[in-house]
Amino acid sequence: MYKAPVAEIAFTLNHVAGLGDALEIGRFGDLSGDLVDAILEEAGRFASEEMAPLGETGDKQGARLIDGAVKTPDGWPELYRHWREGGWNGLTAPEAFGGQNLPHMLGVAALEMWNSASMAFALAPTLTMGAIEALAAHGSEALKATYLEKMVSGEWTGTMNLTEPQAGSDVGALKTRAERAADGSYRIFGQKIFITWGEHDAADNIIHLVLARLSDAPAGNRGISLFLVPKFLVGEDGSLGERNDLFCHSIEHKLGIHGSPTCTMIYGDGKFGAEAGAVGFLVGEENKGLACMFTMMNNARLAVGMQGVAIAEAATQKAIAYANDRTQGTALGWSGADRRGMQQPNGRPAMSPIIGHPDVARMLLTMKALTQGSRAICYACAHAIDMAHHLEGDEARHWSERAALLTPIAKSFATDAGVDVASLGIQVHGGMGFIEETGAARYFRDARIAPIYEGTNGIQAIDLVTRKLPLSEGGQVRGFIAELKEIAEKVEASNLAGFGETAPRLRTAIADLEQATDWLLETQAAGKAAEALAGATPYQRLFGLVLTGAYLAKGGLVSAEDGEGDKRVLLCRFAAENLLAETTALKDRVTAGAASLEAARAVLA
Amino acid sequence: MYKAPVAEIAFTLNHVAGLGDALEIGRFGDLSGDLVDAILEEAGRFASEEMAPLGETGDKQGARLIDGAVKTPDGWPELYRHWREGGWNGLTAPEAFGGQNLPHMLGVAALEMWNSASMAFALAPTLTMGAIEALAAHGSEALKATYLEKMVSGEWTGTMNLTEPQAGSDVGALKTRAERAADGSYRIFGQKIFITWGEHDAADNIIHLVLARLSDAPAGNRGISLFLVPKFLVGEDGSLGERNDLFCHSIEHKLGIHGSPTCTMIYGDGKFGAEAGAVGFLVGEENKGLACMFTMMNNARLAVGMQGVAIAEAATQKAIAYANDRTQGTALGWSGADRRGMQQPNGRPAMSPIIGHPDVARMLLTMKALTQGSRAICYACAHAIDMAHHLEGDEARHWSERAALLTPIAKSFATDAGVDVASLGIQVHGGMGFIEETGAARYFRDARIAPIYEGTNGIQAIDLVTRKLPLSEGGQVRGFIAELKEIAEKVEASNLAGFGETAPRLRTAIADLEQATDWLLETQAAGKAAEALAGATPYQRLFGLVLTGAYLAKGGLVSAEDGEGDKRVLLCRFAAENLLAETTALKDRVTAGAASLEAARAVLA
Repeated sequence: MYKAPVAEIAFTLNHVAGLGDALEIGRFGDLSGDLVDAILEEAGRFASEEMAPLGETGDKQGARLIDGAVKTPDGWPELYRHWREGGWNGLTAPEAFGGQNLPHMLGVAALEMWNSASMAFALAPTLTMGAIEALAAHGSEALKATYLEKMVSGEWTGTMNLTEPQAGSDVGALKTRAERAADGSYRIFGQKIFITWGEHDAADNIIHLVLARLSDAPAGNRGISLFLVPKFLVGEDGSLGERNDLFCHSIEHKLGIHGSPTCTMIYGDGKFGAEAGAVGFLVGEENKGLACMFTMMNNARLAVGMQGVAIAEAATQKAIAYANDRTQGTALGWSGADRRGMQQPNGRPAMSPIIGHPDVARMLLTMKALTQGSRAICYACAHAIDMAHHLEGDEARHWSERAALLTPIAKSFATDAGVDVASLGIQVHGGMGFIEETGAARYFRDARIAPIYEGTNGIQAIDLVTRKLPLSEGGQVRGFIAELKEIAEKVEASNLAGFGETAPRLRTAIADLEQATDWLLETQAAGKAAEALAGATPYQRLFGLVLTGAYLAKGGLVSAEDGEGDKRVLLCRFAAENLLAETTALKDRVTAGAASLEAARAVLA
Repeated sequence: MYKAPVAEIAFTLNHVAGLGDALEIGRFGDLSGDLVDAILEEAGRFASEEMAPLGETGDKQGARLIDGAVKTPDGWPELYRHWREGGWNGLTAPEAFGGQNLPHMLGVAALEMWNSASMAFALAPTLTMGAIEALAAHGSEALKATYLEKMVSGEWTGTMNLTEPQAGSDVGALKTRAERAADGSYRIFGQKIFITWGEHDAADNIIHLVLARLSDAPAGNRGISLFLVPKFLVGEDGSLGERNDLFCHSIEHKLGIHGSPTCTMIYGDGKFGAEAGAVGFLVGEENKGLACMFTMMNNARLAVGMQGVAIAEAATQKAIAYANDRTQGTALGWSGADRRGMQQPNGRPAMSPIIGHPDVARMLLTMKALTQGSRAICYACAHAIDMAHHLEGDEARHWSERAALLTPIAKSFATDAGVDVASLGIQVHGGMGFIEETGAARYFRDARIAPIYEGTNGIQAIDLVTRKLPLSEGGQVRGFIAELKEIAEKVEASNLAGFGETAPRLRTAIADLEQATDWLLETQAAGKAAEALAGATPYQRLFGLVLTGAYLAKGGLVSAEDGEGDKRVLLCRFAAENLLAETTALKDRVTAGAASLEAARAVLA
């Protein structure tokens, strides 16, 4: 069973991602390291002890649609109530509406733990927090006054309604219609699919944020508006009134996250007898809905990256426990002397725990390195978001750009790692990994959605290459690469034997990243957009791998004071001498793969 | 829906894997190319039209255990009867027992198609064929006379009973007990787990081949004997008699292959009232059971490799169809002019099929290259098996070694490709890929067992490095590498512009393989076994990638006569300039990764 790695999370937050320095200079007011530790400790306890057991049973039972109502797995409504009563929903929300206004870094650290315990469950608050953010940033004072407090407390949950059958990645193609009503509100008509927690039994009301198009709106992305559409209408006194004209038509039968109801929502069908049209309230301005939605989506992308980290962590823990427990074969050098009860009859050599076999150790170390690398990238992204919020002027702009640059990498690298690590986790379990009761398969199934939603990882790569690299005319990415070089230099200067070949490997990897970056910037500047796009995905992975190596090294440098045998140093060396070997191949794919890709399109015709 | 790629299969068999040449010189008697084509065509029709539809429904329904009997999905018993009446079960079986004695290459080609249509269904005949082989090679004349004809016809199915809870990869740890009976038969007592198709309703009898240990047997692998243990005892006239003392205790709830019952079998529990002890008959000699079992397992390993190819093919077909159909966004250079009905209202640019986006094209081409590369490797392995059977003396030994060398690569590379390609297939489908009804998720779930069973891919890598590389003192592998170099030279000599950088890339990749091979042979010769094992898995992948590049090139050279734009040449170039870039990193991991792996073990403690 999952046990929240609180010490590892705290170390990464403080010493790799920058929280420690920020606390020291009082960047977050009087927030102390002790309070941070206490919050992490209590979140870890809740995730490990209360949430994780229900995560397992929830997967087996799944969400069910019964007579138009969605029933979540047994115990989930109580779990949700207990969780929000603990104040977790408002951790990072504005104080004005009852939140605790803590740094985003703490928010994502807690989110990691919820997702490790149950990704399906954690999706409910993830969506609510996105809705809170959009509403806080773009909603009118009246809307905020009516809705935000209940959403921050978690009494009401929130959703994002973007997707329609013909409008997925291309949200501009949506057809859901909005009509102006005489009282200044709107009436919404249409169908939305893949709506996470669109209907459920764990909260009294559900606040849908719905993208729709006014009949006189321009085509495409510039004609989209955002509406708040509550499941139950809310009276001026905050009391719940009539059922709004919307309902959950069906829920999906999915590969994973079975406990999370994925709903097809119908708006304005007149199902409840009254005049047809779901009552909606404009968020922000007419036809400016996409900008509002991006407020939700950017942080949602990092939140999805945390799902990758979370699954990787849980899968790694499970695999290491199994590999220490399961005995099979006799590994080279294994005498069995240090474990009792391992001797077999008839003089057969003692079986060793499978962790003793080099190939199993390789899998587990790969899992650990990808997990810790992904975590550091995501936390660094959260740190940049915090800095952008707490600083001003050029500094704020710098950190805002850093967050923008890191977001697609965090989302894609961590979610790919989630799938890869969960797959290795099954492999470590051998035949038992394929049996559902073991639990390793759940991580593999749950993980698979994360590279897809909130913008597929392919979309992230396009975003990274076309919108993020050019920030400050390439200055942001070049500055970041310069920082990475400093880390490599510090490793070299440390003269620690435990680092092995880390310094030269890291230097090579950073040079590969730099070359690929220059090539992409030049290629786009030369107007060859298609060539640049052909290498976007390998580039994104290259960036993530380099960051993994650099952040593991950064952590290793801090904890190397414990001596050369420090585990962080050793894991960093393993990653540098094994995983980073891939960077040159990735750079080649970026800078020299486009022509063969273009030519080979004929194969697919 | 899957459509058997008969032309592609025939091309790979004939022009890449060596069937064409063998037919031409009459290596298989009067077997003609026309007959081969006719067989492939009919197998393809059966797989596409009759098996594939039931594969989908079978996944949803799964196998069920009801009152001690296993019920396979609706329609499967009839499908099985129809299939065996078509003569497919005996395709490669000995003529003396009603088989058609066709080359193994045809057997695996047909197996690919059955597995693409339904891996869960195809497991039944796969196990039967393995049992036939073991019985034909090691069974007494009396056993063969009683059992083989019905097994070759498919009236009775076969199973392999190796695994016990404490004995998985380490089969020598098994505890199932055999006692000699007065009539020369044996009584079997014990529990076996993970028994594929151990109980079902599609055949009149089930012939279990069971590994067990006599009470006076030596410890470990040298004390294991193989027994034939039928579900129903068989009279001298071949009629079915009493129920034997064995039963299916439970079936597993698995990630995939839901239609295939995975059984826990109990032997000798006295459940059916008679004296306890399942009646078994010795196959081969006492305490020599493992050698018999290896007869089954070697071919079973290639058969599992075919599952990887099969899933990759089916997943690729599905993804290409979806990517041609689904429109989203407007790809660079897309005008929509060549497709009707794509114009959108309000002057919005036409959406393009997602296949037009470079990242989607990259995923699809990667899928296609891995599928075709895996197929070629597996067929080449089958060719080597055929040559070993049909030649004698040194030639037979050469081909037998080639088959031995190729088997772990075929098994591991193709099954890893199955998982990777199925995962990319989901990604291409976006959100729809995560919905079970779409069907892409089934491939992902089914594929995941193949890297595990019949020897995990880690076990395959150990086998490759420790037992296969040293064949003929390294002569076999060095000779093979020399053949690969010839292919690279032919590509260079062809001067075809369509090949792009294929020749130099392939040369580099082969040089990487050669260096890694030399290093492994030298390291083992120097007694540093642990160091060699640390790099076994990267080496195995390196070998598979190089073979993918070489075999795609070999096919490209043959079909390049169609002109420089030939699709095989273009796919080969894509693979060479993108996938082969990884080989240097893999070589580095082999030759320089062991120290960091060994040092980092402390991280896992």
